[in-house]
Amino acid sequence: MEETLYNYLRKRLSPHPLLRLGLGDDAAILDATTFDSVVLTVDVITDQVDFLLDEVSPQEIGYKALAVNLSDIAAMAAEPVACLVGLVLPRDFPYESIQGMYEGMIPLAERFGTAIAGGDTNTWAGPLAISVTMVGRSTERGPLRRGGGQVGDHVFVTGTLGGSILGRHLDFTPRVDEALKLHSRFPLHAGMDISDGLSLDLARLVRESGTGAELHLAKIPIAEDARKLSALRNDGVTPLEHALSDGEDFELLFTAPAEESDEILAFAKEIGTPISEIGRITEEPGLWGVDKDGCREELKPQGWTHRLE
Amino acid sequence: MEETLYNYLRKRLSPHPLLRLGLGDDAAILDATTFDSVVLTVDVITDQVDFLLDEVSPQEIGYKALAVNLSDIAAMAAEPVACLVGLVLPRDFPYESIQGMYEGMIPLAERFGTAIAGGDTNTWAGPLAISVTMVGRSTERGPLRRGGGQVGDHVFVTGTLGGSILGRHLDFTPRVDEALKLHSRFPLHAGMDISDGLSLDLARLVRESGTGAELHLAKIPIAEDARKLSALRNDGVTPLEHALSDGEDFELLFTAPAEESDEILAFAKEIGTPISEIGRITEEPGLWGVDKDGCREELKPQGWTHRLE
Repeated sequence: MEETLYNYLRKRLSPHPLLRLGLGDDAAILDATTFDSVVLTVDVITDQVDFLLDEVSPQEIGYKALAVNLSDIAAMAAEPVACLVGLVLPRDFPYESIQGMYEGMIPLAERFGTAIAGGDTNTWAGPLAISVTMVGRSTERGPLRRGGGQVGDHVFVTGTLGGSILGRHLDFTPRVDEALKLHSRFPLHAGMDISDGLSLDLARLVRESGTGAELHLAKIPIAEDARKLSALRNDGVTPLEHALSDGEDFELLFTAPAEESDEILAFAKEIGTPISEIGRITEEPGLWGVDKDGCREELKPQGWTHRLE
Repeated sequence: MEETLYNYLRKRLSPHPLLRLGLGDDAAILDATTFDSVVLTVDVITDQVDFLLDEVSPQEIGYKALAVNLSDIAAMAAEPVACLVGLVLPRDFPYESIQGMYEGMIPLAERFGTAIAGGDTNTWAGPLAISVTMVGRSTERGPLRRGGGQVGDHVFVTGTLGGSILGRHLDFTPRVDEALKLHSRFPLHAGMDISDGLSLDLARLVRESGTGAELHLAKIPIAEDARKLSALRNDGVTPLEHALSDGEDFELLFTAPAEESDEILAFAKEIGTPISEIGRITEEPGLWGVDKDGCREELKPQGWTHRLE
């Protein structure tokens, strides 16, 4: 079976200008002569936590495994270059489904210029887990970090937030292009992706920056899914609360000097991706929500912390 | 708990000259200005397949997870630089054991100049799995590949083979230093590490090289463990068969021009690592064993193929 997978991949994968050696040796080799830095991230997604094996297709699983990692590269405003795929498969996992997972990954990898450079395929008595490692390179602007937020910066977010559990967490487009364009055009100060929920991730950004932030609650872009989820569950959690604390939006959260705000919002229209200005970085630590009447209240960072609760 | 782990690692990990940004952002950043190429490998080890959680210490698990990856970097005769650690933990996994796994990794990482640059920690209802990604850089000699074997080359192996299941698979020293020294001193043609058994791995090397190989069976360095295992099991599998087909030796297998043979064997004494010359590369494909009486018989590549049987 390993042989079959290897032959399928050798045939299926396109050559990549930076990949000197792909599958079939003890390690893969990338041409790094043009690299200033290597950007590295790994994310493991697992059955029953990040997806439900019985309810999604192998393609969706493969897509998500790669997309969450591309989102981390986007978070650094770096260019994706290559990935490695570590599969841990239940013993009875059908070969067709392995190929299906790769069929979910390959078009996404190609779209973002990412070589599938190698991996490791294992079987065991446990459930399905997929570990993807992404390798990127920083641009001449350098990587965008969490800790660069400055007092007075405006806070921005791409897309809309909340309710991704209704499906968006499986088919979102990682904000790689947006991050690269924004970072090359504007003097962004700090950035990350929203994987665990806006309030929790923003709390991390401001902590790393040694600042706080104030959110204009009325400006937070609430996803249609957040409204649907709120109505569907009818449990008193408002659409705004979903937007503030649901995980897996995989949108970009970034800060930039206030005077760039108008141009960033105009640029959003130019590139066709919604960008909202949702608040500002404050000297006072913590997270603060301001409602439309000007009432200010401390926000408790909430979100998805399945990674070691 | 994630916070506790993060604080422990921030304190415990030493700075690394090439690590610009470690834990705490969406991705890690390595200085790559001195890189010609990036060498990349991932290996996932899992409970009940690569170790038995109830019978080994967390330190041993961590050590092995990193060591098998260092062995892949050694296989390419590259320099290890950094690694990422993806943990998938059973829900009731004690925090002390996470730290224990890192305590198994950190001294080994330091010994081989490897930064622990980042990772991902998850919990789930399944058993323990650990995915380690290693990043290395090639030396000025370039990476050593499987496919470079040339007809007439001699075939060499470090250390002794077989019976690693008796314990060596948990505490072996990856042959990073040996690979770098040999590769810089001699014109090695092909190389890999023995992870799945000598005969199976050599069959891969010769297939990639478009050649075959002949093994002098009497010259194969049989580990004391292979003899013990043969006696212990008393199942008719000879020590030689263990040396030929047991997995997880993590020794270097390499080929070099015949005329280098004497100097390579002399060099082995100089560096204090046993090296044996065990055969030669042939034009005829396949693997052939020659016994001390000169009888020649085709060897069926056998070994550990748990990765998708």
